[in-house]
This record gives sequence, structure tokens and C-alpha cells, in this order.
Amino acid sequence: MGIDPGLTRCGLSVVQAGRGRQILPVAVGVARTPSDAELAERLLRLSRAVGEWMDDYRPDVVAMERVFERGNVSTVMHTAHAVGVLVLAAAERGIPVHQYTPSEVKKAVSGNGRADKKQMTNMITRILGLSEAPKPADAADALAIAVCHCWRAPLIERMSTA
Amino acid sequence: MGIDPGLTRCGLSVVQAGRGRQILPVAVGVARTPSDAELAERLLRLSRAVGEWMDDYRPDVVAMERVFERGNVSTVMHTAHAVGVLVLAAAERGIPVHQYTPSEVKKAVSGNGRADKKQMTNMITRILGLSEAPKPADAADALAIAVCHCWRAPLIERMSTA
Repeated sequence: MGIDPGLTRCGLSVVQAGRGRQILPVAVGVARTPSDAELAERLLRLSRAVGEWMDDYRPDVVAMERVFERGNVSTVMHTAHAVGVLVLAAAERGIPVHQYTPSEVKKAVSGNGRADKKQMTNMITRILGLSEAPKPADAADALAIAVCHCWRAPLIERMSTA
Repeated sequence: MGIDPGLTRCGLSVVQAGRGRQILPVAVGVARTPSDAELAERLLRLSRAVGEWMDDYRPDVVAMERVFERGNVSTVMHTAHAVGVLVLAAAERGIPVHQYTPSEVKKAVSGNGRADKKQMTNMITRILGLSEAPKPADAADALAIAVCHCWRAPLIERMSTA
């Protein structure tokens, strides 16, 4: 399962790793919470939405984007609060969590750590054999994070057993 | 209930508002999570610890310190993840959450928005009629946040009904 964390829009995806580098898309969507609601209400809604996805799809692992201190302070903090709730949802279900930086995701998917949104969307559409580009951007990002983990996981595993 | 959010040490306190400005201490403590554990494990432990406090003391309201982007980036992010989990714990139990900035807490408790740690600890010890200063600092901070809310809540209520 790939998650692009956010409080207003949280990208969610589920993919199935196949042979070699083959990856099959299973589900993609966005969990939204109203920006005029209180923080507590928004975190509760997000927690329930992601919990339903986890209970429905029972992923083996959750890959999530790591938050950085960039852009609007209040947005960064909201996203960081959301990450806490999302990681907790996985931990409560015993699902391991891996975090990747945006440039790790870009590098893994497109070969270029500074690929732009359009390049990333094109790559994801091609990799997953989709008939059209996933929308909105948060959904495409969630798929990219899932693909990043599928391709990097075997390497991480080899490193940890080495 | 007053909470000084943190992932390594989270200050927790429960007070009972009495007549006028009188406040009685009920409980104070610190929830700790091991800094060498994974984020998911730490958030799970924190969530369970604060959940137990909430279930044991059934507070009417939770007051929490608002996190700012200051100091070490990774510490700020960890604290922000912790806040997400703490606010969620209250929301899941239907307990309203109020957030205060550090200077709001200092101002409310000591009359000075820039009071130092020692001044704050002295004030809290006096206000709550404690025989000795609460320790560690996170516990004292959690009491200060609770006192801040008790004294500010009537004002906030008057403003919202006005």
C-alpha cells in the first residue's frame, strides 16, 4: 500500500508486486477531510478512512512519503500530524511501515530524483499499464510511492540480511 | 487533562478546576518511548499510554501545547507526529482538544509570556499547593498547560457565546 500523506487530501493506493519489475494496480483513491473542520475531527476522519483501506486490502506493507519542513508552516505541521495518525493505523494492525523521501520515490520510479509531476505521472501510467493517467496528483503520488517500495524492497531486504 | 506532547517524553497531567482560580492536582506523569525503537512502535506505545490515562481519568477536555518549527528538524517532526496521535486519542473518545502556544501558557500561568523554566515551575508548585516542585520538566509543563486551560476556558466560553 502506498500513501501520500496529507490532511486535506491523502493519496491512497494498493498494488500487487508481480514477477521481476512487474507491478499490478489494485486500487487508488484519495481520502479528503474538510479544511474548515477542527483538527481532531479531521484526524479522526483520516484515521477511519485509512483504517478501512487497510482492513479491506490487508496490505503486507505500507510505504509512505517522508515529510519535510518546506512550504507553508501550518500545512507542514498538518501533514506531520496526519503522518502520525497514518503510521499509527498501520502499527495497530501490525503492518510494517517504510518511509521514502520525495527524491527517493522520483529516482526509483523515473531514474531521476528531480523528475517533475508530468514525467512522474507518465512513468506511473506506463509502469502500471493504465489506460489513462491517474488523477488527482495525490493518487498518482500514492501509486509512485507503492512502486518505489516494490522495486526497492528486495534491495533493502538483501542489505538487512547481509 | 494537560499534555506536553513529545515522542521521547510526553508530559501528562490531570487537574480539577475548583472555585474561582483554585485548581487541584489529580495526577502527573510522563509517558516515554525508547528513542531506538521504530517510529511506528513508538507511536503505538504513546497512543496506548495516553489512551489509558484518558480511560482512567475521563477528562472533560484535553489541553495541549501547539508545536512550532523550532529547534532540530527531526525532533519537531517527531513531536508533530506525536501530536497527531494524541489529538486522535482524544477525538476517538469524544474529548474536545484545545491547543495553546508556549507563550500563551507562560502568560496565563505567570503573567509573563517569556517566563523561564524556573519561574514557571515555581508558579505551578505554588498554584497547585504542591509540597515540592513537579519533576521532570515535561510533567511540570503538562501541569502548566492544564492550569492555562482552566483559567482561560471561562474567557474562551464567554467569547464564543458573545
